[in-house]
Amino acid sequence: MNFEQIFEQIQLKRSFLCVGLDSDIKKIPQHLHSCEEPVFEFNKAIIDATAPYTVAYKPNLAFYESNGVEGWKCLEKTVAYIREKYPDIFIIADAKRGDIGNTSGLYARAFFENLKVDAVTVAPYMGEDSVSPFLGYNEKWVILLALTSNKGADDFQYLESNGIKLFENVLLTSQNWGSKNNIMYVVGATRAEMLAGIRKIVPDHFLLVPGVGAQGGSLSEVAEYGMNHTCGLLVNSSRNIIFADNTENFAKAAAIEAAKMQAEMSSLLKSVKNL
Amino acid sequence: MNFEQIFEQIQLKRSFLCVGLDSDIKKIPQHLHSCEEPVFEFNKAIIDATAPYTVAYKPNLAFYESNGVEGWKCLEKTVAYIREKYPDIFIIADAKRGDIGNTSGLYARAFFENLKVDAVTVAPYMGEDSVSPFLGYNEKWVILLALTSNKGADDFQYLESNGIKLFENVLLTSQNWGSKNNIMYVVGATRAEMLAGIRKIVPDHFLLVPGVGAQGGSLSEVAEYGMNHTCGLLVNSSRNIIFADNTENFAKAAAIEAAKMQAEMSSLLKSVKNL
Repeated sequence: MNFEQIFEQIQLKRSFLCVGLDSDIKKIPQHLHSCEEPVFEFNKAIIDATAPYTVAYKPNLAFYESNGVEGWKCLEKTVAYIREKYPDIFIIADAKRGDIGNTSGLYARAFFENLKVDAVTVAPYMGEDSVSPFLGYNEKWVILLALTSNKGADDFQYLESNGIKLFENVLLTSQNWGSKNNIMYVVGATRAEMLAGIRKIVPDHFLLVPGVGAQGGSLSEVAEYGMNHTCGLLVNSSRNIIFADNTENFAKAAAIEAAKMQAEMSSLLKSVKNL
Repeated sequence: MNFEQIFEQIQLKRSFLCVGLDSDIKKIPQHLHSCEEPVFEFNKAIIDATAPYTVAYKPNLAFYESNGVEGWKCLEKTVAYIREKYPDIFIIADAKRGDIGNTSGLYARAFFENLKVDAVTVAPYMGEDSVSPFLGYNEKWVILLALTSNKGADDFQYLESNGIKLFENVLLTSQNWGSKNNIMYVVGATRAEMLAGIRKIVPDHFLLVPGVGAQGGSLSEVAEYGMNHTCGLLVNSSRNIIFADNTENFAKAAAIEAAKMQAEMSSLLKSVKNL
């Protein structure tokens, strides 16, 4: 998917919601455990229930890898299911990969050619050659960690060098590697007040914003400080939506939570940027 | 495996060689492609040929993930093969993972409980809570990226904050998270001259050193600047060993290359530290 197609979906659905498919097998409703593929059944139901309100899905790789071969199968089937039934929805592999050039090239092959997702989250620590192999694919995206939503973000991301914080350095330097058409950035909602400064460095890029809801970030603040003229935001919510209920009613409950967020997003799109 | 057991193997084999199982399906000998599981057959032969000279194996996850479900199966079988046949050899999943706490916890489960490797490489960008879930396992290891061997290492790892470079900050800060008994560091051989300074910060920790051979690092320099009283080094070689030959003779050629490195290591152990 390209930049314009993402923006088009946001306008069409009046939503910039990304649903995180952090489908922990230990947390899915009990009755699904009798299915042959419990996590895949869970994902299908969640996807069908939330698709009307959602512009992106983000399976977090850890939740699949932790189930080994079965988990990897489930991930492949989940991505294929979205791709086939909802071809306009953006798919992000939340993998936080990054390695020396030839190895990153193989990760790019794994995610873009085999798994066929649209985007991969990448850690910046190893620099340009760890990121650029992902940028060689047409209409595919790197989502680079900038300022994350966890407590550990304080350990290194704020370290200042010549007055420039590490996460700012990541934003500045990586603009030489790609453009707003193939790089997005992860910026945690728990740091919403930092979004204004970040927007000065990357006014046009999309930001993937985790941390709204369960982690305590506020959607209206994220919109206030982070929204730009093409929305420029994909706000992720995982647990609040997918585990809203753990009875047989789970998918309906997820739809209700997703619809609530979509309604708030629709109003923010209008009130913040008149979109 | 614990610290003492690793050192014991180094003394026993007079080697600190780690063989990187970067088993690219596109590079393995042609005749193996008629096997049902070509990469697993390749790995088995390489492992059997090199085990006498080797204290660690390091499968790089990208080479397995890029083959999807089949790749993941091959990884599991490879680790199980080493674990069963060579229980004294240390196994590193070169995965460069790292995510918010609960997600890193799942990666730890994936690697330590399911795959049953001894160690995982972890990227430090997200800080303590992205690393500490891996440290909660007895006799398991985090190998934290400090100074990597690739060109992109220059982009951020040398950024100075109050006179301390980022990779030095990673070394300093992470010592509060664990000890020499559960943390090692990645330090590239292409930066061998930096090892002396690094040894001042982490005198006792093991260092995993990639970049000798194909990437141009020198083994004797690594030993000169990086070896400590318990050796303190695991030097990785991948392509130079596993792809030394691509005929039916490949395993024998790998053994010869591994034996050459072991011989040099044995002499360095003696001449540098009288071990």
